[in-house]
Amino acid sequence: MPSQEVNPDLLKERNTATFDPHEFAVFWAGGEERYKEKKSLEKMFLEDPALKDDLPISYLSHKELYEHSLRKACIIGEKIRKLRAEGEDGVDTYNALLGGSLGAAILKEGNPLTLHYVMFVPTIMGQGTMDQQVEWLSKAWDCEIIGTYAQTELGHGTFLRGLETRADYDARTQEFVINTPSLSAYKWWPGGLGHTANHAVVVAQLYTKGEFRGLAPFIVQLRHSDTHEPLPGIDIGDIGTKLGMKSVNNGYLGLKNVRVPLNNMLMKNQQVLPDGTYVAPKNSVLTYGTMMFVRCALIRDTAQSLAKASTIATRYSAVRRQSPIDPNQPEPQIMDHTTQQLKLFPQIAKSIVFKTTGDGIWNMYNVLSGEIEQGNLDRLPEMHALSCCLKAICSADAAAGVEICRLSCGGHGYMDCSNFPTIYGMTTAVCTYEGENTVMLLQTARYLVKVYGQALNGEKLVPTVAYINDALKERQFVNFDGSLESIVKAFQFVAANKIRIAYEQIEQRRRQGHSTEMAANLSGTFLTAAADLHGRAFLAESAYTELLAVSRQVSPALADVLKVVLELYLVDACLNRIGDFLRFIDLTDKDVTTLEIRLQNCLKQLRPNAVTLVDSFDLHDRVLDSVLGAYDGNVYKRIFESTKKNPLNKEPVNEAFHKYLKPFMKAHL
Amino acid sequence: MPSQEVNPDLLKERNTATFDPHEFAVFWAGGEERYKEKKSLEKMFLEDPALKDDLPISYLSHKELYEHSLRKACIIGEKIRKLRAEGEDGVDTYNALLGGSLGAAILKEGNPLTLHYVMFVPTIMGQGTMDQQVEWLSKAWDCEIIGTYAQTELGHGTFLRGLETRADYDARTQEFVINTPSLSAYKWWPGGLGHTANHAVVVAQLYTKGEFRGLAPFIVQLRHSDTHEPLPGIDIGDIGTKLGMKSVNNGYLGLKNVRVPLNNMLMKNQQVLPDGTYVAPKNSVLTYGTMMFVRCALIRDTAQSLAKASTIATRYSAVRRQSPIDPNQPEPQIMDHTTQQLKLFPQIAKSIVFKTTGDGIWNMYNVLSGEIEQGNLDRLPEMHALSCCLKAICSADAAAGVEICRLSCGGHGYMDCSNFPTIYGMTTAVCTYEGENTVMLLQTARYLVKVYGQALNGEKLVPTVAYINDALKERQFVNFDGSLESIVKAFQFVAANKIRIAYEQIEQRRRQGHSTEMAANLSGTFLTAAADLHGRAFLAESAYTELLAVSRQVSPALADVLKVVLELYLVDACLNRIGDFLRFIDLTDKDVTTLEIRLQNCLKQLRPNAVTLVDSFDLHDRVLDSVLGAYDGNVYKRIFESTKKNPLNKEPVNEAFHKYLKPFMKAHL
Repeated sequence: MPSQEVNPDLLKERNTATFDPHEFAVFWAGGEERYKEKKSLEKMFLEDPALKDDLPISYLSHKELYEHSLRKACIIGEKIRKLRAEGEDGVDTYNALLGGSLGAAILKEGNPLTLHYVMFVPTIMGQGTMDQQVEWLSKAWDCEIIGTYAQTELGHGTFLRGLETRADYDARTQEFVINTPSLSAYKWWPGGLGHTANHAVVVAQLYTKGEFRGLAPFIVQLRHSDTHEPLPGIDIGDIGTKLGMKSVNNGYLGLKNVRVPLNNMLMKNQQVLPDGTYVAPKNSVLTYGTMMFVRCALIRDTAQSLAKASTIATRYSAVRRQSPIDPNQPEPQIMDHTTQQLKLFPQIAKSIVFKTTGDGIWNMYNVLSGEIEQGNLDRLPEMHALSCCLKAICSADAAAGVEICRLSCGGHGYMDCSNFPTIYGMTTAVCTYEGENTVMLLQTARYLVKVYGQALNGEKLVPTVAYINDALKERQFVNFDGSLESIVKAFQFVAANKIRIAYEQIEQRRRQGHSTEMAANLSGTFLTAAADLHGRAFLAESAYTELLAVSRQVSPALADVLKVVLELYLVDACLNRIGDFLRFIDLTDKDVTTLEIRLQNCLKQLRPNAVTLVDSFDLHDRVLDSVLGAYDGNVYKRIFESTKKNPLNKEPVNEAFHKYLKPFMKAHL
Repeated sequence: MPSQEVNPDLLKERNTATFDPHEFAVFWAGGEERYKEKKSLEKMFLEDPALKDDLPISYLSHKELYEHSLRKACIIGEKIRKLRAEGEDGVDTYNALLGGSLGAAILKEGNPLTLHYVMFVPTIMGQGTMDQQVEWLSKAWDCEIIGTYAQTELGHGTFLRGLETRADYDARTQEFVINTPSLSAYKWWPGGLGHTANHAVVVAQLYTKGEFRGLAPFIVQLRHSDTHEPLPGIDIGDIGTKLGMKSVNNGYLGLKNVRVPLNNMLMKNQQVLPDGTYVAPKNSVLTYGTMMFVRCALIRDTAQSLAKASTIATRYSAVRRQSPIDPNQPEPQIMDHTTQQLKLFPQIAKSIVFKTTGDGIWNMYNVLSGEIEQGNLDRLPEMHALSCCLKAICSADAAAGVEICRLSCGGHGYMDCSNFPTIYGMTTAVCTYEGENTVMLLQTARYLVKVYGQALNGEKLVPTVAYINDALKERQFVNFDGSLESIVKAFQFVAANKIRIAYEQIEQRRRQGHSTEMAANLSGTFLTAAADLHGRAFLAESAYTELLAVSRQVSPALADVLKVVLELYLVDACLNRIGDFLRFIDLTDKDVTTLEIRLQNCLKQLRPNAVTLVDSFDLHDRVLDSVLGAYDGNVYKRIFESTKKNPLNKEPVNEAFHKYLKPFMKAHL
């Protein structure tokens, strides 16, 4: 679409903003240098005509979509190769292209080569010996081989020890014989496995000398290097259409007596010697690191998804006019309805808080990684517990927020050309992958209940749970004065009480004679509730700390806006858990009404800057890919132009009329 | 798939149930006669091989899907014609085939002919004169013409007075000249409008003798009767792909100086005489009736959607095994995790409560219709207010419940073959169409605030809001003893207080000098919250009344199960609004813990009957259309068989390998 005049309502919004969106955009990108890198990558990728779609992909069949996506994935791969040759392929580049918003601008339903870059290569780096890295890495980096990572099975996900795929070492030939002994053992879900990868890291139960040794990773060639035909013993294909991630080419894999050489087991952590002697790993802690890394990255992704959805819905709400407030006046911008503000603005605030919290956690992770390298594992459990619950909360809230934004756009949000359906599909997937959310909350809760017991014994707890010590001292929360600081403190007090109840529930059931495990299961919903509050208390504190810190570094104009965002976030978060607040803190009906009126005031204060705030997320029109959310706000023109691309509209009369409808209509004549 | 052995875990569940699923199934169907009708329709439609899909429709492109769907729609239309000829086409048949679960079993993404039957024909019946009915109805019933109903425009939805399409009467030729004067005036969304219908009822602003007269409906021919080519002045097509309802062929329509004869305006309620004299309608109340009719029907639809999703997730949760509770035991059925029970069982309970409430409302509507026919409009506002908020609450809860069910199935729920993505798309649509949910809640709230003022003045209120009188008398809620009756009463007390706050907020803003309308807008979020609680209080009371009434009519075994369902529903509903309960009723932390433990006990009590309860919803495997939820529970086999249908798996090597991937992989060699 040629550049058009900007919708006058949007123009008005931009002209009346009280801060400079560029200043915020630079902050959002992570600083001046990253901002420039971002712009340069956008230029390199988004201006390449080969990476533009003439036809929206929602009109393609599953098969067409795969072929279309593989073509683009190869072009991206070629550009990555070029960047790599120039030494320009930093981790940010991979993030942007494979997981981030730039990647989504090109392949919005996912890239069948992503797992090659983000799982296959890193697994060889992390779990291969030096010799193995020499053998495999250059081929993998050059994409001479394309790999994926095959762990989850049709019948087994979360509980890794339940995996059925097995590798039996045959010392005579110095090979492993790999099998998926049943249908439920089939590998299921790996991205690119269907028809793209010709290799995979396959995780299997290792047996040597007839003895079970635990899980191990094996490099398995799946397809012939030249013909791409599946190799003997390999049953492989695409698992089918899905809610989202439609072009990832998720695959299944059955293995029947597939033999791989001894050296194909990645042996950095554990070894099998040629005679079958097994050398166990020194510690298994290191794999926690990778999982935490991924979860920390996901928190930032959820912020990005919510930023996209908020941008689309906010711009549309400035352009769309509906339902007079005053019957004598014309229909207002729907953003002037307070009910609409209550849908949109908390999502904008959450985008910002999830992003700053994600950045904070990322820094914590990096510090921790350094400590782990030096053998100091002290903060690992704390960090693990935190990353689990934040992954669960941010993904669930982001997915819900995307749907709130979509629904706030009425019927138009339901059309694929709004891009909401795709954003939702990609966002809700995060609730399930890399640790299903309920499982995540239970992991956090297990830690919380343990440290609660320690606190009861008078132990001083580590920083992120130290509030439990305070709560045990205070017992009553006095002085709720409504200040932001007291909301944060109150969140911690409430979290401590939810942890107390979970702890008491388990103890009570143990006293009734249940095993610890059964007592925990029977208290499951108390545990997840405790973990939820722990994460929300952390988010509240992080919002408070990080946004005030940023406010001190930016212009007063921007600082003022960020303070409104902070207040809105905290008051809204508090009201969303008001039942817990009222349960543990002595608040009256009037106090709650006061908070509700305060929320309304935050909405009112944010209203003049709402469009400019989402503008400052600086999301390229191609990233948004939405007729409702484009920068120029020409909503109706763009909707209408999208219908012109619909293949069904290329002919005035569809052949189905002649084949089916006409005979039906004339049947009785 | 040939009938297979039933999964042993499911078999065990069925063998240990404490009640007879057939007894419940008959109740669910609406009695013995309806149950038989249902079975007979299923036989007639689901055993016809022409209505079965060899290829799951998720693999089709948008264009292919339309052609496929129109073919099936014509076969259904032919069968309806046959039933009609035999006098067997009762309203239940149309409901089942066009909106209900049987229709969804055949065309799960919707039927492009539905609007012909449910809007075009009824509009002519309701708004045409006798002469007009004679002229149009037989052609329409015989499907000699296919129509749709075109009201919503690209730029205008909820606020009907904002519609731009206009019809100017030309007395010289005795014709109306119909125009969509701008892009935002284009008709948008009507089902079947794209390429299927050749007629439409077009709603337009009527002008005669140069004067504006209000909205009127016109029959407009869109396409040539033989060639199906769009007629001159008609710009028409399909609006494109969507989140759901993918095969409804929703269309757009631009009209440029399209002339229709005087007699094409439907004139039962208002008339234009040949000279252009306008005769206004006597009252506009009757259209409320249709809207209420539709909303009452939608409440039952949401129950059905939730029943489908619960059935799939519950059966899957009995078959899937994961994550040991006791580390020395094998992985349990995931339904044994209490966290899983808390996801599933409230959805089962809501399905039942929404269904019985929907039936109750349906009966109320029928009584009311009779009263309206006799000129008694007394209960119209009350019923309107109730139908609005129930439509909003049931659709929102059902959509959320479908997602909870999907997420409870982990990754497998994300696959289209689970059928969750389609069920969600169809269910969430109800939040938007036939009155967007926030608008619905505001309409209810307007009524509530009005009657609150009447109650303050000492007036005695009508039955569904009489609890406001009680609350004004009592002020304090004492005697919360946790009985089901007291939970219902507490819900009403809480609702009355939310209405009070909304009323006070408006009054306060009026005192500050705002107009009533602006005061209402500024209090918008208080208003929607009040309407939400009103609806939930009604649902609580209805659950209590209806389920106890049913319990008295059925076997003691079934009655016992229904009582658990009722308690689970009420305790869960109360805990979901616990913030409001704590705000207005003097409850302690301990009271809340007691409720939470009680919820756990309900889950435990329901556990042995969960599978049999969903079995009794009696949803045909074709209706569920889910590899996870089939009656036999052969989950993994069915998933695997579904991948064999995937067109991408018909060839071992996709041509995109040769075209794109191989050149990319070999580029550097």
